[in-house]
Amino acid sequence: MDVVRGLEPSRGGSPHIVVAMDPQLVRRFFDGPSWERLMSVGRVSLIGSWENLHTQEARAILRTAEIVVTGWGTGIVDSRVLQRAPRLKYIIHSAGSVRGLVTPECYDHKIFVSSQADINAIPVAEFALAMVILAGKKMFTAQQVYRERRGFVDVVAAMDTAGNYGRHIGVVGASKIGRRLIALLSPFDFRVSVSDPYLDLGTAAELGVGLASLSEVMEQCSVVSLHAPLLASTRGMITAAQLARLCDGATLINTARGGLIDQDALICELQSGRINAILDVTDPEVASPDSPLWQLENVLLTPHIAGAVGNELHRLGQGTVDEVWRAATGLPLARRVSRAAFEERA
Amino acid sequence: MDVVRGLEPSRGGSPHIVVAMDPQLVRRFFDGPSWERLMSVGRVSLIGSWENLHTQEARAILRTAEIVVTGWGTGIVDSRVLQRAPRLKYIIHSAGSVRGLVTPECYDHKIFVSSQADINAIPVAEFALAMVILAGKKMFTAQQVYRERRGFVDVVAAMDTAGNYGRHIGVVGASKIGRRLIALLSPFDFRVSVSDPYLDLGTAAELGVGLASLSEVMEQCSVVSLHAPLLASTRGMITAAQLARLCDGATLINTARGGLIDQDALICELQSGRINAILDVTDPEVASPDSPLWQLENVLLTPHIAGAVGNELHRLGQGTVDEVWRAATGLPLARRVSRAAFEERA
Repeated sequence: MDVVRGLEPSRGGSPHIVVAMDPQLVRRFFDGPSWERLMSVGRVSLIGSWENLHTQEARAILRTAEIVVTGWGTGIVDSRVLQRAPRLKYIIHSAGSVRGLVTPECYDHKIFVSSQADINAIPVAEFALAMVILAGKKMFTAQQVYRERRGFVDVVAAMDTAGNYGRHIGVVGASKIGRRLIALLSPFDFRVSVSDPYLDLGTAAELGVGLASLSEVMEQCSVVSLHAPLLASTRGMITAAQLARLCDGATLINTARGGLIDQDALICELQSGRINAILDVTDPEVASPDSPLWQLENVLLTPHIAGAVGNELHRLGQGTVDEVWRAATGLPLARRVSRAAFEERA
Repeated sequence: MDVVRGLEPSRGGSPHIVVAMDPQLVRRFFDGPSWERLMSVGRVSLIGSWENLHTQEARAILRTAEIVVTGWGTGIVDSRVLQRAPRLKYIIHSAGSVRGLVTPECYDHKIFVSSQADINAIPVAEFALAMVILAGKKMFTAQQVYRERRGFVDVVAAMDTAGNYGRHIGVVGASKIGRRLIALLSPFDFRVSVSDPYLDLGTAAELGVGLASLSEVMEQCSVVSLHAPLLASTRGMITAAQLARLCDGATLINTARGGLIDQDALICELQSGRINAILDVTDPEVASPDSPLWQLENVLLTPHIAGAVGNELHRLGQGTVDEVWRAATGLPLARRVSRAAFEERA
């Protein structure tokens, strides 16, 4: 890990921290102790025009800013903003992706960037784990059958293909979230196969999983969970042909990005009743009101909740303040987004 | 662990193993390798009248039986059966509870009893874990709201009380299943409190949980999962008064036995909309067709699937054959039900 130089001691160890975030989010991300800790690290200013860092107010505050704390919806930090913030050295983003916030110019100006994507990976992996267990158990089908019948279900006969003993689980993408899910799957009697073009056999073995191509994962695994980033190269990667590889009764879980899947092909496959889907994200992000996805019995739709919600935002807030403290203290950032990582994934 | 004497070597190391199980269950519990292994351990006979061990067929087969393998629905092993099975030394039950199967007379006759309850605890704890995660995440509410709205849900605002960061989880009963759930909860940022009259502070500390009274668990925890056995002393333990202690928005999870809860009081509390319930068991076991439980939006009903289903039955079958092998080899049983345990819980 690179060592990041601290702020100049000449500034008295009390840096100017500018919080450029929706006040609603500030309240939800930073609980009392986190906010107090932030206040103790330096002089804190809030920018009212957090959505647009080009306003007169923003320009005045940014003039002496050394650390900027950002959040969902914060305006872009482009070269004009950077020119007006000559002392700016750190952008600490309280959420995951820095896309639409950070620009290549930030790296040209030697700004250090931190994102809390690793922390946001925690609830996503937890959510995916719960869905893997319940998909393997065929819980969603069982509860529908039970509710419709309002009577005894011969579980031994009706659930012949259910169960999580030795079930083969597919993880698409050995991302932070994918790896965290893999770790969470380890106390269970699952077989796990992972497809990721950047994963090698040695690392897969270290993770305790099998390495497979996407086609192999789709063919062999009866529960497949997507954890790839949405890039030009991954958009629509789950094609009609890939969906056709899934075995009858398989469940596809998407807590990543809707754009990974060819949505029309997915709907078509789901309408056949052959497979099931658990979709926390869709493409478009909210399906149109007349989309079949809303009514299909073999689809569970959730409104993009796998990532941090409620008290999980406090975990992001704590991580953010940790990073501000590290910046102020001259310690290396714990969740730095390097230029290479930014260019690859942002 | 007690050492259990093996079968007499004079019988040539090939004991007579009598399988007194529903043939449908035999097929589902014992996969090919398990069945072959069983056949290799001794001479295997099947009893066609597995539901009633008093038939002429059963009497003939039991005369030389040394090990009896039983399952759901196997007829009771009472003193008359025992008198007709003078060589019987082991009852290896392929499922959990031996209630209705084993009698005190079995212990009088120095029969060793094995139950696979520990193995059946695995899927129950896994199911409960998934439900704890999704209850904490308020997934069931979120998906209902989303489906009804068919539009954008402002998750940050709408899910203010959701999330699993620091959530306080209550486990009622430090049973095998309760303890396994506690272990599965350890990689998460939960606080866990357990109520169990037989649990002491030291053991609770070893388990990494807080020890609390039932009232405290109901008051303090926003997700409560029941894992107590159904005994005279626990029947109806979740009274109206205990339910009233749950905080607004709390979720009660029951994968144990319906009789633990005062069902009328539960329905009343659920109809108020104040709390949520995830019920894999009810009292009666299938709710009557006109029960409000079928329609309440804050209730998830599943048809008693938390325990072993589908491929999970193979795990029970493997455990059963392991025990038969241990019996034949003279090793102590791994999952012996002692007389004391039988009298306490069966």
